[in-house]
Amino acid sequence: MRAAIPSVLACLLLAGIGAATPVAAKPETVADWLVQSSATDWRDLDLENTLYLELPTGRVVIELASEFAPEHIRNIKALVREGFYRQLPIVRAQDNYVVQWNEPSEAPPKTLTKASRSIAAEFSVTLPSYFTFTPLPDRDGYAPKTGHVNGFAMAMDPDSKQGWLTHCYGAVGIARGNAIDSGSGTAMYVVTGHAPRHLDRNITLVGTVRQGMPLLSSLPRGEGAMGYYTSADHYTFITDIRLAADLPPAERSTLQVLRIDTPTFQGVVEALRNRGGDWYQRPAGYIELCNIAVPVREAPQS
Amino acid sequence: MRAAIPSVLACLLLAGIGAATPVAAKPETVADWLVQSSATDWRDLDLENTLYLELPTGRVVIELASEFAPEHIRNIKALVREGFYRQLPIVRAQDNYVVQWNEPSEAPPKTLTKASRSIAAEFSVTLPSYFTFTPLPDRDGYAPKTGHVNGFAMAMDPDSKQGWLTHCYGAVGIARGNAIDSGSGTAMYVVTGHAPRHLDRNITLVGTVRQGMPLLSSLPRGEGAMGYYTSADHYTFITDIRLAADLPPAERSTLQVLRIDTPTFQGVVEALRNRGGDWYQRPAGYIELCNIAVPVREAPQS
Repeated sequence: MRAAIPSVLACLLLAGIGAATPVAAKPETVADWLVQSSATDWRDLDLENTLYLELPTGRVVIELASEFAPEHIRNIKALVREGFYRQLPIVRAQDNYVVQWNEPSEAPPKTLTKASRSIAAEFSVTLPSYFTFTPLPDRDGYAPKTGHVNGFAMAMDPDSKQGWLTHCYGAVGIARGNAIDSGSGTAMYVVTGHAPRHLDRNITLVGTVRQGMPLLSSLPRGEGAMGYYTSADHYTFITDIRLAADLPPAERSTLQVLRIDTPTFQGVVEALRNRGGDWYQRPAGYIELCNIAVPVREAPQS
Repeated sequence: MRAAIPSVLACLLLAGIGAATPVAAKPETVADWLVQSSATDWRDLDLENTLYLELPTGRVVIELASEFAPEHIRNIKALVREGFYRQLPIVRAQDNYVVQWNEPSEAPPKTLTKASRSIAAEFSVTLPSYFTFTPLPDRDGYAPKTGHVNGFAMAMDPDSKQGWLTHCYGAVGIARGNAIDSGSGTAMYVVTGHAPRHLDRNITLVGTVRQGMPLLSSLPRGEGAMGYYTSADHYTFITDIRLAADLPPAERSTLQVLRIDTPTFQGVVEALRNRGGDWYQRPAGYIELCNIAVPVREAPQS
């Protein structure tokens, strides 16, 4: 019996009773895990790969996954620096699918100086031997394996050693015509509905929205076929798209994304797979890739 | 060589050249299948189980799946006939999740005459031996088997013989508190984001939206926790919810839903599994339950 006392004491200490620094109980929910996360669990967004899509209603923050689509991302940066996106309209908002921006068909195309209008498709990449990603334990319907790399949802095929970004909510891609190299970043889209995973490896994805999705997802839907607006009067005009690194620090967002190679992220995933708390009656024991929102937060004031 | 001639002729005839009645080519896309559908491939919505959620911006048409939640649906009809939903606010719009309506916390609860505020949970039903559903060929992460019954997305477990409606985009459910019988239809929600399938069998679903989703999905998101509006000034008020059967024919919508026990629906599913046309480079060979929008159309003028 006496032997039990130390462990009881230890339990009380772990529960935060009598401890100088209260230590919380075992995390159960996503919120629990995030509250208990440490500063090193988070990373700043990569300024060289972060776009600010500025709308009259606010800022949408996009992080680019340069490992997956380097040529498209290089071209997007050229377009940004030419001012290509300035006053470009959102021409399409298709319910449960995508919003899209590009030059309106009513106006002549802009003249490009350094950027290109045709970039070779980057639908998937060959994974180098040193590539690591954090796999999910659960099966996926669309791909042999899914998981995350650097905070981006991805899928992979171990046999062919191919990896690709996936069309989850908030994914940002390069619209194209029928020719696979007909996209370049002059027309882009964001997924605003149930993940259209059948698009995976059919079109180039470049990144994901880290903040500001409601500014896109709550836009009035286009009344035409495929959600295109039938009148320019219905367009929302993009003030500009800018690269975070090009802005003075005071104009930058200060977001951080949870590192996926941490016990905290594993805890988040497990909390999503088997939801606790008082409400859930039947934890699913499963989480689908696109039901994981990689946590983002405002950087703490230093 | 001569033997080839008849088949060339047959091909030309099949392509509609020279034929008295043009016959289309083998359907390839969903649109192809729907164009070639016959009148008997479609059914009218069930007037006794169709709700019109009337908003200032238009009508949302909800069809109820009475086999899955008969007691909740009975109670919803009682609430409808008491005028309970008249001027009820949409109090919540959480991005990539749900919209929800219920009595605002600022006002005293309405007095009910026939309807109840507590109905026993109807999270799943025991499937009778005569129950038939149209299964999907593809695996699902959240359930042993998925498919459709009467145009509703569902999942089932053959071992336990349980079946349940699934939280796909447009699914309509009964909000509840922690107690599983704390819902009754006085608070309801509609899924407006990526399918939160982890809610399956944790809360009672009653049906699906057949028309008008954009009126809900494009509502401004609530600025509070869980997407609740923090001010009544931000509410959208429901004009009323009415049962189609209670209205004179001239006020009814005339929608039809594709029967799922038809070759046309099977063709639609296969067209979604392996998308054809000039655009797709790599058909997925797979379709996830919640990526199938069961086709709905306006009934042809007779």
